[in-house]
Amino acid sequence: MSEKYVYEFGDGTAEGKADMKLLLGGKGANLAEMSNLGVPVPAGFTISTDICAEYYKNNGKYSNEVKKQVEEGVTNVEKIMNAKFGDVNNPLLLSVRSGAPASMPGMMDTVLNLGLNENTIQGLIKNSGNERFGWDSYRRFVQMYGDVVLGMKPESKEEEDPFEIIIEEMKVKKAVQLDTELSANDLKELVSLFKIAIKNGTGKDFPTDPWEQLWGAISAVFGSWNNQRAITYRRLNSIPANWGTAINVQAMVFGNMGDDCATGVAFTRDPATGNRDFYGEYLINAQGEDVVAGIRTPQPINDSTKSDADQKTLEEVMPQPYAELEKIYQNLEKHYKDMQDIEFTIQKGKLWMLQTRNGKRTAAAAVRIAVEMFDEGLIDKETAVMRVEPEQLDQLLHPTFDPKAPKNVIAKGLPASPGAATGRIVFHADDAEEWAAKEENVILVRIETSPEDIGGMNVAKGILTARGGMTSHAAVVARGMGTCCVAGCSDISINYKNKEMIASGKAYKEGDWISLDGSKGEVIEGKVATVTPELSGNFGKLMSWADEFRRLNIRTNADTPHDSTVARNFGAEGIGLCRTEHMFFEGDRIKAVREMILADDEAGRRKALEKLLPYQKEDFYGIFKAMHDLPVTVRTLDPPLHEFLPHENENQQEMADEMGITLDEVKAKVDSLHEFNPMLGHRGCRLGITYPEITEMQARAIIEAACQLTKEGVKVFPEIMIPLTGTKAELANQKKIVKEIAAKVMQEQNVEVDYLVGTMIEIPRAALTADEVAEEAEFFSFGTNDLTQMAFGYSRDDAGKFLKEYLDRGILEEDPFQVLDQSGVGILVEMAVTKGRETKPDLKIGICGEHGGEPKSVGFCHRVGMDYVSCSPYRVPIARLAAAQEAIRTK
Amino acid sequence: MSEKYVYEFGDGTAEGKADMKLLLGGKGANLAEMSNLGVPVPAGFTISTDICAEYYKNNGKYSNEVKKQVEEGVTNVEKIMNAKFGDVNNPLLLSVRSGAPASMPGMMDTVLNLGLNENTIQGLIKNSGNERFGWDSYRRFVQMYGDVVLGMKPESKEEEDPFEIIIEEMKVKKAVQLDTELSANDLKELVSLFKIAIKNGTGKDFPTDPWEQLWGAISAVFGSWNNQRAITYRRLNSIPANWGTAINVQAMVFGNMGDDCATGVAFTRDPATGNRDFYGEYLINAQGEDVVAGIRTPQPINDSTKSDADQKTLEEVMPQPYAELEKIYQNLEKHYKDMQDIEFTIQKGKLWMLQTRNGKRTAAAAVRIAVEMFDEGLIDKETAVMRVEPEQLDQLLHPTFDPKAPKNVIAKGLPASPGAATGRIVFHADDAEEWAAKEENVILVRIETSPEDIGGMNVAKGILTARGGMTSHAAVVARGMGTCCVAGCSDISINYKNKEMIASGKAYKEGDWISLDGSKGEVIEGKVATVTPELSGNFGKLMSWADEFRRLNIRTNADTPHDSTVARNFGAEGIGLCRTEHMFFEGDRIKAVREMILADDEAGRRKALEKLLPYQKEDFYGIFKAMHDLPVTVRTLDPPLHEFLPHENENQQEMADEMGITLDEVKAKVDSLHEFNPMLGHRGCRLGITYPEITEMQARAIIEAACQLTKEGVKVFPEIMIPLTGTKAELANQKKIVKEIAAKVMQEQNVEVDYLVGTMIEIPRAALTADEVAEEAEFFSFGTNDLTQMAFGYSRDDAGKFLKEYLDRGILEEDPFQVLDQSGVGILVEMAVTKGRETKPDLKIGICGEHGGEPKSVGFCHRVGMDYVSCSPYRVPIARLAAAQEAIRTK
Repeated sequence: MSEKYVYEFGDGTAEGKADMKLLLGGKGANLAEMSNLGVPVPAGFTISTDICAEYYKNNGKYSNEVKKQVEEGVTNVEKIMNAKFGDVNNPLLLSVRSGAPASMPGMMDTVLNLGLNENTIQGLIKNSGNERFGWDSYRRFVQMYGDVVLGMKPESKEEEDPFEIIIEEMKVKKAVQLDTELSANDLKELVSLFKIAIKNGTGKDFPTDPWEQLWGAISAVFGSWNNQRAITYRRLNSIPANWGTAINVQAMVFGNMGDDCATGVAFTRDPATGNRDFYGEYLINAQGEDVVAGIRTPQPINDSTKSDADQKTLEEVMPQPYAELEKIYQNLEKHYKDMQDIEFTIQKGKLWMLQTRNGKRTAAAAVRIAVEMFDEGLIDKETAVMRVEPEQLDQLLHPTFDPKAPKNVIAKGLPASPGAATGRIVFHADDAEEWAAKEENVILVRIETSPEDIGGMNVAKGILTARGGMTSHAAVVARGMGTCCVAGCSDISINYKNKEMIASGKAYKEGDWISLDGSKGEVIEGKVATVTPELSGNFGKLMSWADEFRRLNIRTNADTPHDSTVARNFGAEGIGLCRTEHMFFEGDRIKAVREMILADDEAGRRKALEKLLPYQKEDFYGIFKAMHDLPVTVRTLDPPLHEFLPHENENQQEMADEMGITLDEVKAKVDSLHEFNPMLGHRGCRLGITYPEITEMQARAIIEAACQLTKEGVKVFPEIMIPLTGTKAELANQKKIVKEIAAKVMQEQNVEVDYLVGTMIEIPRAALTADEVAEEAEFFSFGTNDLTQMAFGYSRDDAGKFLKEYLDRGILEEDPFQVLDQSGVGILVEMAVTKGRETKPDLKIGICGEHGGEPKSVGFCHRVGMDYVSCSPYRVPIARLAAAQEAIRTK
Repeated sequence: MSEKYVYEFGDGTAEGKADMKLLLGGKGANLAEMSNLGVPVPAGFTISTDICAEYYKNNGKYSNEVKKQVEEGVTNVEKIMNAKFGDVNNPLLLSVRSGAPASMPGMMDTVLNLGLNENTIQGLIKNSGNERFGWDSYRRFVQMYGDVVLGMKPESKEEEDPFEIIIEEMKVKKAVQLDTELSANDLKELVSLFKIAIKNGTGKDFPTDPWEQLWGAISAVFGSWNNQRAITYRRLNSIPANWGTAINVQAMVFGNMGDDCATGVAFTRDPATGNRDFYGEYLINAQGEDVVAGIRTPQPINDSTKSDADQKTLEEVMPQPYAELEKIYQNLEKHYKDMQDIEFTIQKGKLWMLQTRNGKRTAAAAVRIAVEMFDEGLIDKETAVMRVEPEQLDQLLHPTFDPKAPKNVIAKGLPASPGAATGRIVFHADDAEEWAAKEENVILVRIETSPEDIGGMNVAKGILTARGGMTSHAAVVARGMGTCCVAGCSDISINYKNKEMIASGKAYKEGDWISLDGSKGEVIEGKVATVTPELSGNFGKLMSWADEFRRLNIRTNADTPHDSTVARNFGAEGIGLCRTEHMFFEGDRIKAVREMILADDEAGRRKALEKLLPYQKEDFYGIFKAMHDLPVTVRTLDPPLHEFLPHENENQQEMADEMGITLDEVKAKVDSLHEFNPMLGHRGCRLGITYPEITEMQARAIIEAACQLTKEGVKVFPEIMIPLTGTKAELANQKKIVKEIAAKVMQEQNVEVDYLVGTMIEIPRAALTADEVAEEAEFFSFGTNDLTQMAFGYSRDDAGKFLKEYLDRGILEEDPFQVLDQSGVGILVEMAVTKGRETKPDLKIGICGEHGGEPKSVGFCHRVGMDYVSCSPYRVPIARLAAAQEAIRTK
C-alpha cells in the first residue's frame, strides 16, 4: 500500500486538519482546516514535510508515487476550480508556497502565477478581459521563477536583481515613474527581455511546459529550506532542521483583475489594544504584496478601523463580500478560540480566504484579549494564562518611547535593563547626583560602573556603559532599580578627561541630550518622547489567575526598603537575595568599611565594624519591616575588599585626606589587595572565614534588627545566606559563627526569632557535593550567574569579546547569562537539587541568579522542583506568569 | 558474656598479634607479636581502642568489667615480672603509653615509672642498690605525672614547665651545670618541691596510691587523643578521629640502673643507604630519651656502625646481650619481611625489646632494600614495588643539599619544584641570561614570573617568587625544566627598582648569594654545598618491575626536544601536553607574535602568522623526532593574547621601537586586551574560533612537520588537542579547521600521517556534557589545573591569600592544586570518563594537569579507567611507580 504524501483541500472539504502542522506545515494545516469549515479557500493540495526529507535524501528526485499523487492533486484542483492546468482557453494557474511546521516568515521561497506560457497567457487575457493584467501576471511569473527556481537572484544583497535593472531601463525608455504606468505592450516586451536574460544567464530557455514549471518550483521551495537565512532563523528560534517544510500548491486567485477585485489583511481584534473590533485594511485592484509595499495607501475595511472621514471602507465599496468576510472572521475566531490574522482576496466580487493564523499582538492587547476571551466564555482560565508571553509583560512595566516619534539611533549595545529614558549626559556618578539635585534628568554614561557609582545610578534616568555584559554591575543594579540601561555598548568610546563620548563619529559632550531604549539596547540622539504605561485591571486579573496555577513562589532581589516595596506591589512573596554590600557605599558607611580594610589587625577591624553595625542594623530593620510576614534572605558580604577602595588617583587622594593617611598607604593597600582574577579570588565566605569578625557583625545586625521588630509585633523571617560556599566545611564554619552570635543576641534581647542559615550554590564544587553541603545547609539558593561563569569558564565582564561571535556563529544558541544553559549548567543544578534532597528531603531550594526572572529558566526551575525563584522587582510579574505557564504545561 | 578489652602479653606469649592494629594500636600489636615470637618483652597489657571510645562516651568513667580486666592485667604482669604493684619491698613499676592504629609520634602522652611513692621508692632503691637512680626515677615520675595527668604543663609553648624552673633553681643553688650532677639528696629535695608546686598549682596532693596513679594516667592518655596537636596531626595525615588510641601498660625496665645497663635504638639495615648491615647506637647507663636528647654522644653498637676507632661498640662491651640482639633482629626482619626500627634496653645485663616497627628510610635505601629483599627471596616482586613511596623518588632525581652543611633559613615559601640550588641573585630575566652567559650561577628572584621570563628561567639554577601557588607559572615551568623553585614566598619583599629583596629584616642585593631548597620551600642565606644524586641499578630494576604491573601509560608534559629527551630517558611513553605558546617567546618569534596581535584585520594576522609558521614547524619537527614512535599531544594556543605583550613601560617602549610604532599604540593595544579575569577570558579555543587563522597556522605546522618526518622514515603520531572546550560546537569548529588543513597539507606533501584531534576537558561544562563533546573528540585529556580552578572557583594566582588559612584551619585537607580533589573535582572527572565512553567506548582518555605526577591522583586516574597520565619529566618515574602500586592495590 502506498503512503499518503499529498493532502487535498478546497470546496468545503479537506484531507488535512489544523492539528497536522508537523506533517502539513502551519499554512497547509490551516488551509485544510478552513476548507473543512466551509470557508472559501482556493482549491489546492499540500505536499507533506515527509517529501522534504525525501527530497534531501534522494538528491532532489521524487518517486513515481509522489509524482502520481501530485498529478492527482492538480486534477482535483482543476475539477474544483473548473479550469485546466496548461489549457489555452481556460488555464489553471497555481501558486507554490512553502509552509513549515513553525512560522518562518519570508525565509523560504514562493512562486506565483505558475502555468503561464505563450499559449496560456492568451486564455488568461481572454478570461480576465484585461490584457495588461495578463502580461503583468506573466511578467511577474517569469521574474519570480527566474529568481527563485533558475537562480538568477544575486547572492549578495548589494547586487541588484537583474530583472529589476531591465524594468528600470524600460521605465527610462518609456519615461515613466511607476511600474503601473507601463502598458500591456511594455510588459510583453519585458517578458521577452526577461527570457533573453535568463537564456544568457543560465544557458537554458525558460521552461514553457507547465509541469516542468511545477516540479521546478516544488524543488526550489524544498531547496530553500536549507538556504542560509532559513538556517540562521531556525537556529535563532530553536526550530529543528529535520522538521522540513511542506509545500502548498494552490489555485491562483487575483485581486488585481480590475476594480471588482481587491485584497486585504485583517485582525479579528485590534492587535495594538486588544479592542474587540474587527480591524483591517484593503486595496482595490491589487495583489497582496501591494498592501505591504506601501506604494498605495491601504484603506480601512470598516468604520471601526477608519481614522479619516474621507476613507472609503470595504464595507461601503463591496458590501456583499464584506458581509461574508465578517461572518467568516467570527467563525474563525470562534473556531480557533484566538485572535486571527487573516488574508483575503476578492476576485471579481468573489471572496477567497488565503490564510488564517493566530495574530501577533502587543502586550497590552495580549492581556486584554486573554482576559476578555475568558469572560466571553471562549477559553478557559488556563488557556487565558497561556496566551500571554511572560517576556512581553516587560513592555507593560516600563516606560516606552512613543512609537511614532522619529529616532536617530547612534549606537547599539546590550538591552541590559528595559524601559526608555531621555536625559542629559553626565560621565561621573557625583555629577549625576549634583545635576539631579537641580532637577535635571541625567543619563549616566560610564565605561563601566562599580559599587562606588551607586548614588549616581540611583538618580539617573538611564545608564549607558561601554563595557560589561547582561550581568555586569551596571546591568544588575539597573534592573534592580527598574532603571533603563544599555550596557556593553562597544560602539561608543568615552573620554572622561574631555567629558565626551564619540558615537557614530560624532562627539557628545556633558549636558547633551540622549535617549536610551533599554529594551532594545539603542542609544538615540536627542530627546525622544516617552510613554508611561498604566497597569490595567485586566493585568491584575491575569496575574491573579496565574497565581492560582503556579507552584513556585516568587521572591525578589532587593537591597533597600524601597525596592522591597516595589517588588511586593508586583507580587513578590519574599526577598530571595539582599546584597548587604550594596549598603556599604551609602553615606558615611564607606568610611567605616575602608577603616576596616585598612586595619592591620583583628582589633582594628572590630573597631571599624562596630561603627558599621548600627548602619547595617538600620538597613535590615527597614527591609524586614517592608517585607513583614515574608522571608528575607540576606547574603553575607560577597565582593572582594578591593571593590570598596578607590582605584583612580584622584579618589585615592581624597580617601587619604579623609582618613588622615598618606596616598602611598592607600596605594599600598590597593596593591596588596590586587588580584589577577578577582572573580576567583578572596571573596564570598572566604572573607568571612579569614575575617570571622565581619560575619559576626553582620549576623548581629540581622538578628538585632529581627529581635527589635519582633518586639514591635512585626513578623520577620530572616534567612542568612553564606555566599560562594565550595565545601561543607566552609559552610559549617560560617554557620557556627552565625548561630553563636544569634543565640547571644536573642539572649541579650530576650526574644526568639525564627531564622535559617543556608548557602548559595554558585560554585560548581558545591553543586557536585550538595549531599555533603546539605548536611549543614538549612536552604540552598542557586547563584546561577557565578555558576554559569565557572561552569563555562566565562568571566561575565570579559566574555563580551567572544560571546557575540559565539552567538553569531551558532556556537552558542543563547547567551548563557541571559537564559540558563539547561543542558550544561542545568546538569549541575539538577545534581545539586537531587543530592541536596537526598540528605534533606524537605530542603528549601530557590534561585537568586538573574535567570530567576527569565521565563524559560523559570520553567526549568519549576521542573527540577525548586521552591522559589527570585528576580529583580520589575521581573516579578514575568516570573509569576512563567511559573504558572510551566505548571500548566507540565500538569 | 563480657567482652574482651584488655590483651595481655609477655613471657613468650600474648593475646594479641600484629594484624590487630586497629584494636590494639601499632605498638600494642607489635609488642604482642614480639612476645608471641619469644622475643623478651617486658610483660604488660594493651587496653583496646574500644575503651577509648567508651572513655569519651561515658565522660571518663570506666565500667566494672574494664576495671576488672585491667586489674587482672596487672596481676598477670606481677606474676611474670615477679614483682608487686605498690609493694614496698619488690615494687612493680609501670609505663603507660599511647599507641594508635597509625603512628602519631610524640602527639600523645606517656607516663613512666608509675607506682612510685614514699614507700615503694625504698624498694626500688634497695633492689637497684642505687639511691640516686631511685630518687631520679621518682623525680621524673612526679614531674611527668604532674605535667601530663595533673595538667601542670603550660598550654603555651612560650611558658616554661614549672618543674624545669625548680630544677634550674636547684642547679643554681648547687652551682652545677647538668641534671646529672645533682645528688640523690638534691633529687629527693626536688621531689618535695615538685609536690609542693603541684599542691599549690592544683590544690590537691600528689596521689600516693599506685592504683589511683594508674587510672589517672590511663585517663590522661585517652584524653590526649583529642589534644590540639593530635587533632592537627590526624587531619594532616588523614587519620580518622573515631579510631581512638589504645593504651599499653607495661612493666618498667631500666637502662639507667648502672653500668651493666644500657639502652639503644637500631635498624636492621642502614636507613640512609639501605646497606644490609645491622646499624644502631646505644648508651651505657641511660634511658631511651637520653639517646635522643643529644647531651651524651651515643656509641655504635657494632663495627659496621662504627665511624671512629676510639668508639666502644655494644658488641665489645656487652657481647652476650649483643649476640642475643643480633639473633632477635634477624628474626624480626625475617618475620616482618621489612627493615625494622627497634628499641631495646639492657637492665643489669638482661636484654629487653621495647619496640619494633618498620623503619623509615631514605629514597635510596628504600629502593635498595626493596630490590635486595626480593633478591634474597624475602619478599615477592609486588611487595618490592609497594615498598617505595613514589613521592620519595623525587629525592633521587634532583640535587639535594649536603645534609651536614649548616643552613641559615631566611624565608619559607611553597616547595614548588624540588631540588637544591645555590647562586647569585638577579631580579630580571634578561639579567639572568646575561649573567649566565658569563658562567655565573644565578637564582632568578621575581615577584612573579610570566612567559616573557622564560629565557631567564631556563638558565637560572633556581627560581624564587614572592607570589603564586604550586601551579603558578613559575612553578609549572620550573618543574617542567627540572629546575628548583620556591614559589609564593610571601616572607620576602622585592623592590625591582633598588634591585633588592628583604628577608628576615635583612636586605639582599643583586649579586648576593642565596640557596634554595625546592623540596622544602626554604630560602637560605649564602652558599650551601649540593649533592648530585646518582641513579643506581636498583632504581632501574625497581622501575622495570613497576612497569610489569602498571596498566596506565605514563606520558610527559614537554615543550622542547630537550625536555622530551629527558622525559623519555625517565621512561615517558609519549608527550601528553606540548604547550605551543612556550615556543612563542624564543628568539624572533615574539616579534611575529606581536605583529599578529597588533594587526587590525585578518590579512595582517595571516601575514604575521606566515612568519611564525616555519618556526613552529621546526619546533614540532624537533619534538616529534625526539619522541619518534610515540604519540605527541600538541595543544593549540591557550593563553590570552595580552600575555605576549609587555606590561612594563620600559619594555613597551622597547617593543614600540622595535616594531616602529608609537608607545601609545602599544599601550592602546595592551589596554584593549585588558581583562578583569583573564583566567575566564578570551583564551583557549575561544582564540582559535575568533581567529581561525591561528589554528590553521598551527595545524599546518604540526602536519607539515609530521609529513616531513614520515618521509624521512620517522614514525610520528601527533594528537592535536583543543584547549578550553566547553561545548561540542567549539570542538567541532576547531576540529573542522584542523581536518581541512591536515587534508590539504597531506595532499600537498603526498604523505599520509596518522593523527587525532581531541580536546582538553578542563571546563566544568565540558565534563558535564562529555557525552556530547565525545561525539567530536578523538581523545580526552583532563586539564585538572583549570578544572580545579573552576570547580572550586579559585584562581591559582590569588588563592594564596586564603588557601593557607584553609589548610591550617582544616577547611581543606589538602591543597587541591597539589592533590586532586577526588570528592569534588573527581566527580566531574568520573562523570566525564563515564559519559565520554558512553558515546565512544574506546575513547582514549588521559590527564595532563599537574596532578598527573602526584601519586594519590595517579591512583585515582587508574581507578576511573584513564589510559594515561602525563606529568613533568622529572615526575615520570614517580608516576610509573604510583601507577604500578595502584594496579597492585586494586588487583
